[in-house]
Amino acid sequence: MKIWSMQQLLEHFGVSVAAITGVLAARGKQVDLFGVVVLALVTAFGGGTIRDLLLGAHPVFWVAGPEFLLNAVLTAVVVFFLVRFRELPLSVLQVADAFALALFTMIGARKGLAFAVDPSIAVLMGVMTGVAGGMLRDLLIGEIPLVFRREIYLYATAAFLGASFFVSLTYWWDHARLNMIFGTVVTLLLRLAGIKWRIGLPLFRPKISPRGDDIK
Amino acid sequence: MKIWSMQQLLEHFGVSVAAITGVLAARGKQVDLFGVVVLALVTAFGGGTIRDLLLGAHPVFWVAGPEFLLNAVLTAVVVFFLVRFRELPLSVLQVADAFALALFTMIGARKGLAFAVDPSIAVLMGVMTGVAGGMLRDLLIGEIPLVFRREIYLYATAAFLGASFFVSLTYWWDHARLNMIFGTVVTLLLRLAGIKWRIGLPLFRPKISPRGDDIK
Amino acid sequence: MKIWSMQQLLEHFGVSVAAITGVLAARGKQVDLFGVVVLALVTAFGGGTIRDLLLGAHPVFWVAGPEFLLNAVLTAVVVFFLVRFRELPLSVLQVADAFALALFTMIGARKGLAFAVDPSIAVLMGVMTGVAGGMLRDLLIGEIPLVFRREIYLYATAAFLGASFFVSLTYWWDHARLNMIFGTVVTLLLRLAGIKWRIGLPLFRPKISPRGDDIK
Repeated sequence: MKIWSMQQLLEHFGVSVAAITGVLAARGKQVDLFGVVVLALVTAFGGGTIRDLLLGAHPVFWVAGPEFLLNAVLTAVVVFFLVRFRELPLSVLQVADAFALALFTMIGARKGLAFAVDPSIAVLMGVMTGVAGGMLRDLLIGEIPLVFRREIYLYATAAFLGASFFVSLTYWWDHARLNMIFGTVVTLLLRLAGIKWRIGLPLFRPKISPRGDDIK
Repeated sequence: MKIWSMQQLLEHFGVSVAAITGVLAARGKQVDLFGVVVLALVTAFGGGTIRDLLLGAHPVFWVAGPEFLLNAVLTAVVVFFLVRFRELPLSVLQVADAFALALFTMIGARKGLAFAVDPSIAVLMGVMTGVAGGMLRDLLIGEIPLVFRREIYLYATAAFLGASFFVSLTYWWDHARLNMIFGTVVTLLLRLAGIKWRIGLPLFRPKISPRGDDIK
Repeated sequence: MKIWSMQQLLEHFGVSVAAITGVLAARGKQVDLFGVVVLALVTAFGGGTIRDLLLGAHPVFWVAGPEFLLNAVLTAVVVFFLVRFRELPLSVLQVADAFALALFTMIGARKGLAFAVDPSIAVLMGVMTGVAGGMLRDLLIGEIPLVFRREIYLYATAAFLGASFFVSLTYWWDHARLNMIFGTVVTLLLRLAGIKWRIGLPLFRPKISPRGDDIK
């Protein structure tokens, strides 16, 4: 009971953090309160929703009960008004966001395994749960997803490596809770290392640079 | 039988109106006939489709039969050619669109209740059915969703208040048809009041104005 | 067994081609390796995924096994590095892409028929499977879908006519395999004719040209 509560607490923390990054994406965009709430919801629930739809997991996790919805909406409304008066501590938020990324990735990979998909698909479910919400948020505000860009050091890559580590571990060792903890720590450390040493993936640099509209 | 026909008639009216706003969004965008048809379909079916997928309602409402599809495609094709010769009466359309918003919102909230979700989720299903199609349409033409912006006076907010009123009513009073009518009227009046008196939600105005890419 | 292998081979060919067009869309966009892989996956799987979700076909085709995922990821990674050193033969790719369009469209229409939807819905499922992946790809890179624009000669239209031909044929003639082949050939020829003679759909040219934000 206590363990379950701990996990729920962490999930709610992750949802709040994701909602906050959704709100902050509205900066400089002429968005009203409704837009801010939608951006918060999409960021917090987007990845898990796509995962549940793809796996055929009904009901979708946040439709099953009102707790996550109320959490995300309240967070968005509070932050909406709060940032009129106070600057948020962005470096703290960045670490919190790294933790949310790690946690969401593990939850997604674990749910994939619970639906008995191939390990490669489970890893993808993890990455998707971790990053797709932020991608949808960026789409809604008319930006190319930040996670595609080199400046976001080891974001999706940290999720990918962390999920791969977690999924491999479960095949070697049958200790669900410790595996989750190890996977989360690995993802978090990779993400923080990426930020600290500015490690990123190589950029796409084709020989043919101008985008030709001749091909589809 | 007659009542059911009345509701179906209204739903087809709503689909046509949504399809027209989809077509009109293509103005100034170098879009061809196919693009116009897709914009019409996405606007008319987008919200209800996301709702049905989230609720696990199979088949999705417009996949169950050809009527809605044919309605939206025909509307789009007729308007595509019509607007070459005639200007559409935009103020009439705006009232028709307010009615479609109200009707779609009620249908969405009712379907949520039929799937026994939490009242807060049912309200969200209503708002989503009312506004998500227009949001997807704006995404496809590369605009930040109009519904996020203050100039769209009480659009999503009218849907939210109307859906909340309708869902509350059903807990107090067991008269499905009258509740639908009352909820539709409330939403419609709020939307029209928003247009008339230019009432909008507050804008997002953070102290930290430049969008920092440091945080995800 | 042999026939099934042939179809699988063709499907994998189509997935690879779609993945390549996804990678190439990243040109000039400051996208890193992760972004390129996502664009490849979205282009290759997007249409079929939306189709399967709408039809309620579980599991979604590429979630059922790792083959398609590995194909698309490997293709994306290889092309990512290859294009640093070599220009791709775009005119060959364009023909390959026309074939992938034709094949995906037929697979989508057939799956619609297998779920006993209305013929008009089956045609739409075919068109969607053929073109929606490319539309999502364009959304992710912040472009209005290329398939909406007249310069893409007879793209969605070829899919529409080919799917209509295929679906009509199945009502007249009960020869699943030949129908697929005929439908594919018709779609392919229409698309190639569109490219060769630059045949496109009419553009949207309303009398009221400026986009008014007054109507939602």
